[in-house]
Amino acid sequence: VKYPLAFERLVSCFNRFQGIGRKTSERLVFDMLSRWDSEAIEEFSHALSGLRQGVMTCPECRTHIETLPCPFCSDERKNAKLLCVVASSKDVYAIDTTNLFPGTFYVLGSLLSPLDERGVDSMDMPLLKKRVHSGIEEVIFALDSSLEGDATAAYLRNELAPLSLKMSRLATGVPVGTSLDFVDRGTLSRALSGRYQL
Amino acid sequence: VKYPLAFERLVSCFNRFQGIGRKTSERLVFDMLSRWDSEAIEEFSHALSGLRQGVMTCPECRTHIETLPCPFCSDERKNAKLLCVVASSKDVYAIDTTNLFPGTFYVLGSLLSPLDERGVDSMDMPLLKKRVHSGIEEVIFALDSSLEGDATAAYLRNELAPLSLKMSRLATGVPVGTSLDFVDRGTLSRALSGRYQL
Repeated sequence: VKYPLAFERLVSCFNRFQGIGRKTSERLVFDMLSRWDSEAIEEFSHALSGLRQGVMTCPECRTHIETLPCPFCSDERKNAKLLCVVASSKDVYAIDTTNLFPGTFYVLGSLLSPLDERGVDSMDMPLLKKRVHSGIEEVIFALDSSLEGDATAAYLRNELAPLSLKMSRLATGVPVGTSLDFVDRGTLSRALSGRYQL
Repeated sequence: VKYPLAFERLVSCFNRFQGIGRKTSERLVFDMLSRWDSEAIEEFSHALSGLRQGVMTCPECRTHIETLPCPFCSDERKNAKLLCVVASSKDVYAIDTTNLFPGTFYVLGSLLSPLDERGVDSMDMPLLKKRVHSGIEEVIFALDSSLEGDATAAYLRNELAPLSLKMSRLATGVPVGTSLDFVDRGTLSRALSGRYQL
């Protein structure tokens, strides 16, 4: 016996998310069928249709925002000479909540992933370069500490090298509040070589 | 800076799923914003609106199905004296794919969970009893091997005891293909006490 068609259709939508496989998709739809009332499902459907209209991308920093002017680009108190390059909008909001970064942002969209053949296209290098040319003096690459993050940082450093900027990456090391027991070898070795003087 | 309203609205929809927290919801919506085109989002929205119309609950076995007659209840080859009681529709489809169970089904909707105060209401005991009265001779409780599953099986056994049925539960033990190293103590002790003669 096969699942109902309407069920299958919804399962394949959930299946599109990164990290949500077929099994989880089925579980989610069954969860809806057994626990959600019709209103909640309608609300979900409306929230989806409203997403594109209610969220736009800032043409300068490419963060997903509600309306222009972009709250990240238009803040006068920000240091316009300092640029933080991140992979996704998510990182912009995350860094913003720390209240520690005084500069502006640029969202790459994705990291370079030679294995998945995800390339440079989504980064819009011409826009990034134009941005950097408009008075940026220091660029911080706030990227994942992963193979993809390393590849992306290396690529961007090369691309931006002719512009003679100060460039840096986030420190790699032991996360705050973590016991050394739970830190993997790679992290430990990076933390050792990056140790700071007391 | 706050997330856009349309973003928040969708996040709180995802947040309704069991096992999907606030963080994951945000990740999913960002995933949509950065990787899905408008068509895919519209398709998702439509699939949601179509779910209730495209899926119904069989009034006899309470499985989520496409249309009546219910493929599980109407199959003439099935042994109508044998009833398998499961927690959710999912389990019906899962057991059906094994091709090993020759009987009919009853979906409880949820397991008893005294801690969450989930009660007997969702099981529709009158319907289950009516069903059992209509010629059922053997009932198999195919429930999770968990506290909730145990509580539910105990409750149902008591409720159905006056009907003098053959009642059983699925065997508890080592999953097929699993190394003993990976089996927890509880499972191992149940597997030992339930060992079978060679």
